[in-house]
Amino acid sequence: MQADFFQLKQFVISVFTAIGCSDADAELAADVLVSADARGIDSHGVARLAGYVRLFDHGRLNTKPNIKILHESPSTALLDGDRGLGLVVAPKAMEIACEKAAIAGTGWVAVQNSNHFGIAGYHAIKAVPQQMIGWAMTHAAPLVTPTFSKEKLLGTNPIAVAIPAKEEPAFLADFASTAVAYGKLEILQRKGLDTPDGWVQDKDGNPCNDAFAIKNGGALLPLGGDREHGSHKGYGLGAVVDILSGVLSGANFGPWVPPFATAGFMQAGETVGNGTGHFLGAMRVDAFRPTDDFLQDMDTWIRRFRCAEAVEGKQVLIPGDPERLLEIERKRDGIPLLEPVVADLSALATRFHLDFKLD
Amino acid sequence: MQADFFQLKQFVISVFTAIGCSDADAELAADVLVSADARGIDSHGVARLAGYVRLFDHGRLNTKPNIKILHESPSTALLDGDRGLGLVVAPKAMEIACEKAAIAGTGWVAVQNSNHFGIAGYHAIKAVPQQMIGWAMTHAAPLVTPTFSKEKLLGTNPIAVAIPAKEEPAFLADFASTAVAYGKLEILQRKGLDTPDGWVQDKDGNPCNDAFAIKNGGALLPLGGDREHGSHKGYGLGAVVDILSGVLSGANFGPWVPPFATAGFMQAGETVGNGTGHFLGAMRVDAFRPTDDFLQDMDTWIRRFRCAEAVEGKQVLIPGDPERLLEIERKRDGIPLLEPVVADLSALATRFHLDFKLD
Repeated sequence: MQADFFQLKQFVISVFTAIGCSDADAELAADVLVSADARGIDSHGVARLAGYVRLFDHGRLNTKPNIKILHESPSTALLDGDRGLGLVVAPKAMEIACEKAAIAGTGWVAVQNSNHFGIAGYHAIKAVPQQMIGWAMTHAAPLVTPTFSKEKLLGTNPIAVAIPAKEEPAFLADFASTAVAYGKLEILQRKGLDTPDGWVQDKDGNPCNDAFAIKNGGALLPLGGDREHGSHKGYGLGAVVDILSGVLSGANFGPWVPPFATAGFMQAGETVGNGTGHFLGAMRVDAFRPTDDFLQDMDTWIRRFRCAEAVEGKQVLIPGDPERLLEIERKRDGIPLLEPVVADLSALATRFHLDFKLD
Repeated sequence: MQADFFQLKQFVISVFTAIGCSDADAELAADVLVSADARGIDSHGVARLAGYVRLFDHGRLNTKPNIKILHESPSTALLDGDRGLGLVVAPKAMEIACEKAAIAGTGWVAVQNSNHFGIAGYHAIKAVPQQMIGWAMTHAAPLVTPTFSKEKLLGTNPIAVAIPAKEEPAFLADFASTAVAYGKLEILQRKGLDTPDGWVQDKDGNPCNDAFAIKNGGALLPLGGDREHGSHKGYGLGAVVDILSGVLSGANFGPWVPPFATAGFMQAGETVGNGTGHFLGAMRVDAFRPTDDFLQDMDTWIRRFRCAEAVEGKQVLIPGDPERLLEIERKRDGIPLLEPVVADLSALATRFHLDFKLD
C-alpha cells in the first residue's frame, strides 16, 4: 500500500492536533515523522505515530509544553523539554544551538525531560543551510549490552553529523551505535529468518542468530559485534551518546532511560533524572575557516570518495546519499506502508474522527 | 626486555632535544609518547620515536615551531602547528580549547600543519582535572577503505572522549574507527598467523585473512567490517573525523593525508592542504549542569555499568579501565620493549651519543 507524502503528513498533523498540539507544533512533529518514512527509515516514521499517542494516553506526553532554558553560557544551554514531543523539543534545541553558534562560533544544547525525537539526521541537517556543521544524538531505552555484559544497559543511541558542501549535497552521517537497528530484526521476524552472526546474543550472553533474541531475554550487540571485532568501540560510542544525552542533561541514563511508549517507568524509584535526553550542536564553519574555502574542499572530498574505485558491482557512497535519493523518489511516487501500520493509522482515524485514505 | 618508565622518558627527552626541541617541548613530547607505552598502546609509543626522527631528517618536522592562532571566535580557534611535532602541537591546542571553554562554555580547536599526535586519549583527558569533557581526534595516512571501495581513502582515524567523575576514575573512550588497529596485524605477522574474518580485505576488495593484506594491496576495514555488520557506520565515523581534522582545519584530507614518517608526500601537486590535522575540544560541565550533580551521576553511571551481570568468566569494563590499570602497573614494574624497538632506540643512542640501557 502506498500513501502520498503530503496527504500522509496532513493526516499526522490532524492526529497531533487532536491530542492537543498547537498547529505549529503538529506541523513540525509531522514533518519530522513523515520525513523518516520518505528517507526510508520506516521504523522511525508513521509506524510510531500510535506510540506517540500511547505516550499521551499514559500521561507521559505534554502536548502544550513550556520548553525553557534552565541554564546557559555563550556556547551552551540546558533545555527543559517539559515532557513535550521530542519531535518538537529537538528542533527547538537545534534552533538555540544555531543561535549560539552564530555569536559564539559553536552552540551545544543538552536536553532533559523530552521524549523520542525521531531520526537524528533530521535535526542535524537543520544547521546546514546556515553554513554550520550540525550534530544530533539521543539515547533510547536499553536494548543493547556493553561488551561482556548479559544485561541491557544502553539504547541503540544514534549519532548524526551533517556537513555542508558547495555544489554537492550535504554529507550526512546518521547511524545507531549498534551493529544493526532493531527494525532489521523485525523484518527477519516477519520473514521467519535467522540473523547473521554478530547482530544479537542470547540471555546468557552467547552469540546467537535468533531474530527474537530480545523478546527471549537476549540483546542487540554494539557496533563491532564482539570484542575481537571491536564491540568495545561501539560500546564506547553508545556510552558517550548516553552520557551526553542523559548525564550532562540531567535526564535519565543507562538502564533507566524510559521506554518509548509504555507507562512503566513512571513508577516511583525507577528514575535517576528527568525523562529522555538529547544532545544537539552546531559549529559555524567560518568560526574556523572562510566558508567558501571549506565548501570547496568538501566538494573535493565528496567527489574523490564518490568516484573511488569500487568492488565489482558496487559504488562507493557518501554518507546520506541513499536516504537523500529515496526521499526525492518517495515524495514523488508515494510512501509504501505495511499492513499493520495502515491498521494502526486507520484505528487512529476512527478514534479521532479523521479521514485516512490511501492512493 | 623491560625499561623503567622514567629512564625511558628521560632517554626520549634527550633524543627530542638532540634534534632541536626546546627542553619544555622535549619533556612534553616524551610524556605523550612514553604514556602510550605505559597504557599498553605500544604501537604509538617509543616504537615510533625513530619515525619522528625520520620526519626530522626528511625536513618535514620543525623542532622550533611558531604555533599560532590563525583565526578565532569565542568558542573556536584555527591553529597553525608550523610543522611541529603533533605531540607538542596537540597539547597546545587542548590548552586553548580549555581556555575558550572556561569563558564561552565550550572550546574547539582545529589544527593544520601538524604531524602525528600520538594517542588521542592523552590529549582528551587533559580537560578532566578542569571539570571539562575532553575531545580529541586526528586523521592519519590512508590504510582503510570506505564500504564497497577498493581504494584506501581514510586513516584509522581515532576519536577520544574523556569524562570526569567524582570518586570513580574518569571515563575515557579512545578508539580507532576501524575493526582493529594496524598494530594488531603486525602482531599476527610476527606470529605467522591469519587474521579473523572482518578485519581486512584483499586488493580486489574481497574479504580475506591475510595479516599482510595492506602490504599486498589490500586494506583495513572500517569498524563493522562489512555492510551487513554496519561497516558504513565505521566509515561514516572515520569520515567525520577526517573532515573535522582535515577539511575544517585546512590540512590535507582523505587520500592526501601525509604518511607518518616518509618524505613522499612533499612532491608538488600531491597536497590539498597544510600537513596533518587534528580536532580537539573541551566542554565545561557547569556550562550545562552544576558540576557536583554531574560528577555524582557519573559515579552512578560507572558503578552501574561496572557491576553489570557479565558473561561467564568476564567483567564489564568502563572505557579506559584496562589502560588505566596497566599504566599503574607499568610505571611501577617497567615497560616491556620488543627487540626491534630496542634496536631502533639503541641506534638512536649511538647516533646522538646518548646512553640507552635497559634494566
